[in-house]
Amino acid sequence: MALTGVLRPGHAQLRVLNLEEGVHHYRDVLGMVETGRDEQGRVYLKCWDERDHNSLVLREADQAGIDFVGFKVLDKATLDKLEGDLRAYGLATERIPAGELLATGERVRFRLPSGHDIELYAEKRAVGNGLQVLNPAPWTKASENGIAPVRLDHCLLYGPNIAEVQKIFCDVLGFYLVERVLTPDGAGNVAIWLSCSHKVHDIAFVEHPEPGKLHHLSFLLESWEEVLRAADIMAMNNVTVDIGPTRHGVTRGCTIYAWDPSGNRFETFMGGYQPYPDYEPTTWTFDGLGAGGGLDYPQRKLHESFLSVVT
Amino acid sequence: MALTGVLRPGHAQLRVLNLEEGVHHYRDVLGMVETGRDEQGRVYLKCWDERDHNSLVLREADQAGIDFVGFKVLDKATLDKLEGDLRAYGLATERIPAGELLATGERVRFRLPSGHDIELYAEKRAVGNGLQVLNPAPWTKASENGIAPVRLDHCLLYGPNIAEVQKIFCDVLGFYLVERVLTPDGAGNVAIWLSCSHKVHDIAFVEHPEPGKLHHLSFLLESWEEVLRAADIMAMNNVTVDIGPTRHGVTRGCTIYAWDPSGNRFETFMGGYQPYPDYEPTTWTFDGLGAGGGLDYPQRKLHESFLSVVT
Amino acid sequence: MALTGVLRPGHAQLRVLNLEEGVHHYRDVLGMVETGRDEQGRVYLKCWDERDHNSLVLREADQAGIDFVGFKVLDKATLDKLEGDLRAYGLATERIPAGELLATGERVRFRLPSGHDIELYAEKRAVGNGLQVLNPAPWTKASENGIAPVRLDHCLLYGPNIAEVQKIFCDVLGFYLVERVLTPDGAGNVAIWLSCSHKVHDIAFVEHPEPGKLHHLSFLLESWEEVLRAADIMAMNNVTVDIGPTRHGVTRGCTIYAWDPSGNRFETFMGGYQPYPDYEPTTWTFDGLGAGGGLDYPQRKLHESFLSVVT
Amino acid sequence: MALTGVLRPGHAQLRVLNLEEGVHHYRDVLGMVETGRDEQGRVYLKCWDERDHNSLVLREADQAGIDFVGFKVLDKATLDKLEGDLRAYGLATERIPAGELLATGERVRFRLPSGHDIELYAEKRAVGNGLQVLNPAPWTKASENGIAPVRLDHCLLYGPNIAEVQKIFCDVLGFYLVERVLTPDGAGNVAIWLSCSHKVHDIAFVEHPEPGKLHHLSFLLESWEEVLRAADIMAMNNVTVDIGPTRHGVTRGCTIYAWDPSGNRFETFMGGYQPYPDYEPTTWTFDGLGAGGGLDYPQRKLHESFLSVVT
Ligand SMILES: [Ca+2]
Ligand SMILES: [Ca+2]
Ligand SMILES: [Ca+2]
Ligand SMILES: [Ca+2]
Ligand SMILES: [Fe+3]
Ligand SMILES: [Fe+3]
Ligand SMILES: [Fe+3]
Ligand SMILES: [Fe+3]
Repeated sequence: MALTGVLRPGHAQLRVLNLEEGVHHYRDVLGMVETGRDEQGRVYLKCWDERDHNSLVLREADQAGIDFVGFKVLDKATLDKLEGDLRAYGLATERIPAGELLATGERVRFRLPSGHDIELYAEKRAVGNGLQVLNPAPWTKASENGIAPVRLDHCLLYGPNIAEVQKIFCDVLGFYLVERVLTPDGAGNVAIWLSCSHKVHDIAFVEHPEPGKLHHLSFLLESWEEVLRAADIMAMNNVTVDIGPTRHGVTRGCTIYAWDPSGNRFETFMGGYQPYPDYEPTTWTFDGLGAGGGLDYPQRKLHESFLSVVT
Repeated sequence: MALTGVLRPGHAQLRVLNLEEGVHHYRDVLGMVETGRDEQGRVYLKCWDERDHNSLVLREADQAGIDFVGFKVLDKATLDKLEGDLRAYGLATERIPAGELLATGERVRFRLPSGHDIELYAEKRAVGNGLQVLNPAPWTKASENGIAPVRLDHCLLYGPNIAEVQKIFCDVLGFYLVERVLTPDGAGNVAIWLSCSHKVHDIAFVEHPEPGKLHHLSFLLESWEEVLRAADIMAMNNVTVDIGPTRHGVTRGCTIYAWDPSGNRFETFMGGYQPYPDYEPTTWTFDGLGAGGGLDYPQRKLHESFLSVVT
Repeated sequence: MALTGVLRPGHAQLRVLNLEEGVHHYRDVLGMVETGRDEQGRVYLKCWDERDHNSLVLREADQAGIDFVGFKVLDKATLDKLEGDLRAYGLATERIPAGELLATGERVRFRLPSGHDIELYAEKRAVGNGLQVLNPAPWTKASENGIAPVRLDHCLLYGPNIAEVQKIFCDVLGFYLVERVLTPDGAGNVAIWLSCSHKVHDIAFVEHPEPGKLHHLSFLLESWEEVLRAADIMAMNNVTVDIGPTRHGVTRGCTIYAWDPSGNRFETFMGGYQPYPDYEPTTWTFDGLGAGGGLDYPQRKLHESFLSVVT
Repeated sequence: MALTGVLRPGHAQLRVLNLEEGVHHYRDVLGMVETGRDEQGRVYLKCWDERDHNSLVLREADQAGIDFVGFKVLDKATLDKLEGDLRAYGLATERIPAGELLATGERVRFRLPSGHDIELYAEKRAVGNGLQVLNPAPWTKASENGIAPVRLDHCLLYGPNIAEVQKIFCDVLGFYLVERVLTPDGAGNVAIWLSCSHKVHDIAFVEHPEPGKLHHLSFLLESWEEVLRAADIMAMNNVTVDIGPTRHGVTRGCTIYAWDPSGNRFETFMGGYQPYPDYEPTTWTFDGLGAGGGLDYPQRKLHESFLSVVT
């Protein structure tokens, strides 16, 4: 968690073109646990080892993409403090009442210059991970239902003005830059990976003309063998794979990119190192993203879909 | 890192009975990188993927054990602030001048009621992990020298008054309780695992009559396959194994405990989950530590050495 | 398979003290597939990736242990030829009619000088491994039910006269010696590992005064990560572990020994190398079995139960 | 090994455009051990865990490709017998004198209707795998030099008349069909995988108009984690990857295809199941090779290079 009290990405609301297809994908293939549905028809899911009520909310819509990403903060005082800091920085914020998302307290929402809506919240009902409270086993049967990631880990968003976005996350919310890709002329950043913890990324951005776009939502696996198992399960279920299994040079993470039935890209990955805010950020040249192995270390190429396919 | 600005356990000074045997063990068998020796004859080592100059300092002495454990903090202001907080709490602190440890800034030292010396410091020279700065590869040859853990991860200390110790770490330094083992009567804790991050432990304590004792220093591996490789390398080098390879029920970590040539226990481990301060701590009964699999999940027994052999 | 046409260990009949407890263990915990029960009340099981109808037959009895081990041979002509060779060697053989074991053809049985009954058979009904015939997936859901080994791999038997046993397997049935442990005086063998293939063992023997004893039946896993998963599942189901997870120095296999509810030891393991008959056998001294890591490479000790607990 | 006494693919002679580049690739990047050079300038290598003197022979030539593949047979009597059987079948055979290949006995060579030269030999000097003879460790330092496969495993050859080739291997040499891909009209086979053991393939063929072509030489790794390590090492050394890391649907093997500096494709892989001659062969439709995941199970596509790039 950041020194500011931002703990982690806690939820994301995703638009799917067909709700039941989306639920089938995220619950039965990815293997999340369905924890509720609300009056608006939204479906709530969590990864088996997450303890809060939900981390993924599916909303049926005419266009795929992401509605918002929410970060859990330590407590209500932190929420108030950070709202004040965001306003002081010059951003408009909005309060969304407790209960608007199931089992979730009041949220503070603001829009990034990249066009994405980000939320902060301090409360989400703990429902546990299905393990006994006393003397727990290390895992449950749910950890083998579908791909079964342990948690929603991060997302990669595409939009304009990521230099501005970086300042908001770093100067106001307490994140730090972990890795970056330079523009072809080396004058700025094409891509940035930001952490509020010692995860190699809690959120990441790529500079892109269209605002508010989603590149991928990412879910954490526990081993490279689980990445292979995920690949098998994707193939068994006719999930279209974009890239992988492979290793990203950026972050060292071992990954598969694939698409849900609505065309939203999702990632199942493991590994990467654990950075701290005193680390010098790692830098990739623009060529390094492709031929340098930044995107696909073994293949050393810039898969065309990486920069072009978003929702 | 904690909200207080405590980042991570950054160094430990270990007493070894024979310096060159100790160096051989930690450099050639464990596979750390030797980064320097000082006028006192102390030898400095780091894990291959650590970026600061040292994480382990070996000092030859007549008795094995641990001299101190140091936590890196964000910056000098944090160091000053935390020193003030420790004094306000009622603890005596001592300043050790910059340079007393090679490549390391000023340290603030205090003694825990368990008899252990803990240090805070804000500066240690970054020497890098041997990877190129631009477009780095994911690993170097050094990552396959010996067991080659990626970092010093945590230590488990034995001493009296751990309830008091817990208060200092949690109330002053910003740690939180991740797991604990109850006393046989359930009235208190026999063992506590504390985190200043989302590591499952940055430091841990077991209640023990003798003050200032070391149970183990722990080093992080990247996979269960690397744990097997570590076991093989230990056997090839006649390192005496205490427990493992196995899984701890506590923390879910997958581990080997073994002894260095001076009788100091060290651990090479991987895995475990990633907790946050909003998680309810996991509780083990005293019986759960043994028959419940807390110590050794497959074997479900309290190995006699666990509670009796310390340095 | 051996040049003689002996393919593999295909079935074993095990005595259990309580049938339903045995079925629960081998079907629900080990994760074999129950394929039938016969008029005698015997229960038939196979591993998920085996294609023949059964590999393990459970018979309720007052005393645990093994009734017989059967090897599948290429065809009926091979069966007849090998029966003739066994008789020519001086062993009595017995024909057991087709159907006495479900889905199994005629068997040729003979008793080893170690007191064990060995069978050869040419026919067992193929029932498949549950994968589609055309364009199969790499695995099925059954591969994650319980520990879910891929096959019955080998057994280790204890009894007298293993030098004689070795001659029968090698000179008559076409096996070869892969590894051996010398007696303390180095004059003979205490233990032998024999292969009819390039498996590191299809059957193994330890010299022991009591005839006809079972040390363990062994089941093959696909990775060291599956060995950890097996360990977890054993602990979750209160299966008593004898040794492991660890690596055998002998064969290099990575293993857990544990006991079924009747006290029969079973093994789940992976790995080891793939020998050929032109390889020089690997030799272990008697001390090498313990301190040399032959039994438990990381721990380098002769666990007391290894030589004393059999059924 | 086959019932005929054919043990395994024991050597292959590969043409490289530049000898020292080839040696660098196979010795320093793939990590084989150089065991000799002969008067013709050929370089001999073996995998670390192979016991015979050589398994790969590099010959500098103007055109890349494979000169011949040799299978080791049990003994000289087997060699004579198989030569007689090949002649009786109608194939011309040639004797190449002992010593023409370093450390290798007399070879019997014949040409397949696919245009490939195949050899049988009974003798190659055992040089061991570098482990001590008594009480060996499970591996040596050489097992971590470069990619470090344990053995030459199989090759895939492209040429005409593979139905004829299959008959020679199965009817004369004792191999059996493990998997096959049907022609688009389903009337014949486009590809066949043949085994003389319980390896999922000892040699494989794809129907192709040009005779004598090499698709890949394959080397065995021990785990999926080693496949990732191989991918990393390839990228670190600018080896061009063709496909992978991924799983083949055919054989279930987990693989990387890549090219040596001369354009010869090589594979590093692990896994797959272990078939026996009593198994029904697995069949893939022509579409199944691509969209069915036969070639690349996660990606479910027929990479264009698979059918077009050979040497
Ligand atoms: Ca898992
Ligand atoms: Ca590593
Ligand atoms: Ca499996
Ligand atoms: Ca290896
Ligand atoms: Fe990602
Ligand atoms: Fe520990
Ligand atoms: Fe065994
Ligand atoms: Fe291949």
